[in-house]
Amino acid sequence: MSAAVVESQDAQESGVREGAFGNARALSCRECGHEVELGPHYACSECFGPLEIAYDFPQVTREEIEAGPRNIWRYKALLPVPTDIETSPNTEPGFTRLLEAKNLAAELGLTRLWVKDDSTNPTNSFKDRVVACALSAARELGSKVFACPSTGNLANAVAAAGARAGMKTVVFIPSNLEQPKQVNSAVFTESLVAVEGNYDDVNKLASEIAGEEDGWAFVNVNVRPYYAEGSKTLGYEIAEQLGWRLPDQIVIPVASGSQLTKVHKAFQELITLGLVEDKPYKVYGAQAAGCSPVSVAYKAGVDAIRPVKPDTIAKSLAIGNPADGIYVLDVCRQTGGAVEDVTDDEVREAIVLLARTEGIFTETAGGTTVGVLKKLVESGQLDPELETVVINTGHGLKTLDAVAGSVGPVATIAPSYAAFAATGLA
Amino acid sequence: MSAAVVESQDAQESGVREGAFGNARALSCRECGHEVELGPHYACSECFGPLEIAYDFPQVTREEIEAGPRNIWRYKALLPVPTDIETSPNTEPGFTRLLEAKNLAAELGLTRLWVKDDSTNPTNSFKDRVVACALSAARELGSKVFACPSTGNLANAVAAAGARAGMKTVVFIPSNLEQPKQVNSAVFTESLVAVEGNYDDVNKLASEIAGEEDGWAFVNVNVRPYYAEGSKTLGYEIAEQLGWRLPDQIVIPVASGSQLTKVHKAFQELITLGLVEDKPYKVYGAQAAGCSPVSVAYKAGVDAIRPVKPDTIAKSLAIGNPADGIYVLDVCRQTGGAVEDVTDDEVREAIVLLARTEGIFTETAGGTTVGVLKKLVESGQLDPELETVVINTGHGLKTLDAVAGSVGPVATIAPSYAAFAATGLA
Ligand SMILES: Cc1ncc(COP(=O)(O)O)c(C=O)c1O
Ligand SMILES: Cc1ncc(COP(=O)(O)O)c(C=O)c1O
Ligand SMILES: [Zn+2]
Ligand SMILES: [Zn+2]
Repeated sequence: MSAAVVESQDAQESGVREGAFGNARALSCRECGHEVELGPHYACSECFGPLEIAYDFPQVTREEIEAGPRNIWRYKALLPVPTDIETSPNTEPGFTRLLEAKNLAAELGLTRLWVKDDSTNPTNSFKDRVVACALSAARELGSKVFACPSTGNLANAVAAAGARAGMKTVVFIPSNLEQPKQVNSAVFTESLVAVEGNYDDVNKLASEIAGEEDGWAFVNVNVRPYYAEGSKTLGYEIAEQLGWRLPDQIVIPVASGSQLTKVHKAFQELITLGLVEDKPYKVYGAQAAGCSPVSVAYKAGVDAIRPVKPDTIAKSLAIGNPADGIYVLDVCRQTGGAVEDVTDDEVREAIVLLARTEGIFTETAGGTTVGVLKKLVESGQLDPELETVVINTGHGLKTLDAVAGSVGPVATIAPSYAAFAATGLA
Repeated sequence: MSAAVVESQDAQESGVREGAFGNARALSCRECGHEVELGPHYACSECFGPLEIAYDFPQVTREEIEAGPRNIWRYKALLPVPTDIETSPNTEPGFTRLLEAKNLAAELGLTRLWVKDDSTNPTNSFKDRVVACALSAARELGSKVFACPSTGNLANAVAAAGARAGMKTVVFIPSNLEQPKQVNSAVFTESLVAVEGNYDDVNKLASEIAGEEDGWAFVNVNVRPYYAEGSKTLGYEIAEQLGWRLPDQIVIPVASGSQLTKVHKAFQELITLGLVEDKPYKVYGAQAAGCSPVSVAYKAGVDAIRPVKPDTIAKSLAIGNPADGIYVLDVCRQTGGAVEDVTDDEVREAIVLLARTEGIFTETAGGTTVGVLKKLVESGQLDPELETVVINTGHGLKTLDAVAGSVGPVATIAPSYAAFAATGLA
């Protein structure tokens, strides 16, 4: 009996329906290449390396994609989801704006700049993409609870998607999280759990629970391989929205590092599938100085990431022990990019800069990314003549405090023309 | 010389370029039908009635619309904007999700319910639509300042759109406005002016300034006719997203009443243009009990609206003297709908209801609308068997305080499995 037949029997025994994961073929170890069948696995049984989805892609055309829904499911053939995915209740994330940012480009001295704006996703961050893929996996695997440890945005996305899907959710956050992100989860779920500790503590607790409890799908733990694939859609969309072309340079925030590696994977897949022309492009990672383990390793020229204790206002990026950090180093070095970091003050300034130039209100993660873009230009690490994309992954309303102290009314006046005239604004 | 030729000469004298307002023909008085040329006018010179845009529509096909951009400009032929509108910098609002709300429908006992979710617009409310149309008018009229009085959302949208368009903005808000809405404007503009008073005071001040200052485009005052047309796109999108059909019933929040009347106008235009089949539909207006001048008039069976002093948490709907209130009465009565209102507690409950059932976090305006939907069903004013659409016009992150007291973490625990097990969630 061939391995494929054995696997398909296993799949039937495990109760997973035919086609549950679309064109996905297996889970494959990123380190040693060992393959296991599709299921709730995330670490290689041979070497403990992280498992990734491997596919048998059919021929996919631009026309097929363009005829699809105006959300991430237009790329369903490239994701580990069933072909009828758009019919099961989900938040329908994706296909967010790609805005040409002429004002910001002029400000920074760039020739051509685009902002991919994921702040307009259903729960206002790119996490709705990954969670939609994790939800599909949880559903297909028959999970009873949809859960996550989160720096905030993921909690919002899991709680909302679970509510809409009618699935029980339990979300774990650091107890010191920004209040908007807490309310933005609690409104969707009865079971928001605040954990005394930082994200890395919350994450460790989640792994423990995942090990103890049956039927709990922790989106970024035991269904992480499916979850992570969702970030590829950022890469697909950018290419499609540029008219099926890749940019020359792209700047991406780094917490665990998953998103950055998956955008790169998406670009590579598009090239392999013949959907875009092959061309070189540089990938840049953005971190906050108060949590910059990947940037520090990049600058030191080493391969190993030394975990840190985060201390930054960019809480959504505050992962001190990033699971995919070493792969971020690989991608940025191989493509000729870099990893850079900025201070909290630079984050704040960049939030206001993006708002005042392009009318986009980003959270601290986006402030970090735009701040790093600025620093990369100023330090000559990014070529100002090349076409550049910067990803805005979240919304400023979730991290109001970052700028609440530095912007506000220019005047408070009585309701009379005389009072207005006295402001000097006339 | 024909009137048309005179008008076109006038247009040239006033410096407005050919085609500046697309297929719009004139400004027409809603009360007496008197027509004036397109320009920065908003009140009839004969009777002081409000001016509306009148068009000479060409043949418009579904295919042309569907081939357009994924934002409101796909309907540019039906708006007072130039044919190249999508090339001038704007926030690219619209084409937001229309989600079938099966969980909420089941909860309320409805057969088929949809939520049109405008909380995912660029600045997270439907105001981005109207502001985009006002921005085009301001640009074509050569205005120097882009301004508004606002209950909050409009300020966000004007400040953001102005920033992106590189136009000076000045926005006026009541000084007691929710902090998120203040920061969400101040981040985009240097000139946020807090006014001691309620929205009606701010609005009066804006009219005064519009009268005194040259070149100030107050989006909802002197360019209101252009601005208001933007709300039609909500109606167009709902019809297109339903597969070019009209719903049987639609529930819409009412502040000034503009949006509701314009959604009705949109449906009528689609029928006239042959883009959807003619059929009856009922329009329902939603107000908060603490500011319900239109609902009060509806229930009393009178035509006149008696202004009120608002006192409600639904601040974005807190217009005590609604400019289009009488037209809301007309539309709701003619179509067989109604106007209803709910208490602040019902608003809060409805926010959580929508979040827990559909994963959508709405602001107090949406809580009002969903609360009214519930009340209409319960009181038998809305037919549970008919296909219903409810519009969510804004985002919960802007009115956090409304629910911050009633939702939150279910537990705060130490980062250990034992502590988790003790919560009873295992
Ligand atoms: C807003 C935002 N941007 C970026 C990231 C980084 O994601 P990743 O962990 O994939 O590197 C996160 C992660 O939480 C986030 O919330
Ligand atoms: C969120 C929201 N919904 C609805 C409305 C009502 O709009 P209208 O004045 O067109 O009735 C407003 C107006 O400010 C609003 O901010
Ligand atoms: Zn391995
Ligand atoms: Zn008149």
